[in-house]
Amino acid sequence: MTGHPSIDKIFLALEQGHAEKDAAAILACYTPDALIYNLPPPLQGRGLDRGETEAWLATWDGPVRVSSADVGLQEGADLAWSTALNRMQGRKRDGETVDMWFRTTMCFRKTGGRWLIVHEHASVPFYMDGSYRAATDLQPAD
Amino acid sequence: MTGHPSIDKIFLALEQGHAEKDAAAILACYTPDALIYNLPPPLQGRGLDRGETEAWLATWDGPVRVSSADVGLQEGADLAWSTALNRMQGRKRDGETVDMWFRTTMCFRKTGGRWLIVHEHASVPFYMDGSYRAATDLQPAD
Repeated sequence: MTGHPSIDKIFLALEQGHAEKDAAAILACYTPDALIYNLPPPLQGRGLDRGETEAWLATWDGPVRVSSADVGLQEGADLAWSTALNRMQGRKRDGETVDMWFRTTMCFRKTGGRWLIVHEHASVPFYMDGSYRAATDLQPAD
Repeated sequence: MTGHPSIDKIFLALEQGHAEKDAAAILACYTPDALIYNLPPPLQGRGLDRGETEAWLATWDGPVRVSSADVGLQEGADLAWSTALNRMQGRKRDGETVDMWFRTTMCFRKTGGRWLIVHEHASVPFYMDGSYRAATDLQPAD
């Protein structure tokens, strides 16, 4: 948690939204035109799409558990950003078990008295050993 | 460019530092303990290492050309962040030709009258088609 009550609420809403597979609750954390640099392609997108989010949540069998570690926050008057290592755990409907660490930068803006995510950057590194394999097997201590 | 004179200077210094393979010029854009979410593993690091940066620059035959597109900036009193799609082009000493788009979020803080990068997140997405291949072949229009 960040120690910033409004932003902690967003962290919790995202965790709960994934656990309950509630696309509307997830989307409510973002401005409609938030700039998204997401784990899958494309390079960038504007706003989370409700249909795509629902379809993605439906690929999981049971809850999607998302948690945060090494959380950092920089806060200004109406701008803030958080940094975190995140863990996503669950079982996909195709039988795959997912337990993956990634990192997120989330940028927030206070508009009309309310903090919302205006930019999110989520990623894993990739191996520069010629394999160009996404490094989905890293641990925070690596 | 962002339209923010001090941050534009950082963008230019990074471009020039890569083109001239000047590790010191690149490092001068960052605080010593900047939180780095880089293209290769690990998940996170603190500060750019001079030796590692020099070693990486030495893997290129000739200049490393880095450019930015779709640049966005959000600015507060002493905090700001930029978003951008970046293109890295050049030839590695092992003969590989690199022409890769990635995305960066850079977070800046003004300290002692000077803007510096306190957090950088650079990444490419990865294909969630079972291949877990890093998407180093994307174009901004994809």
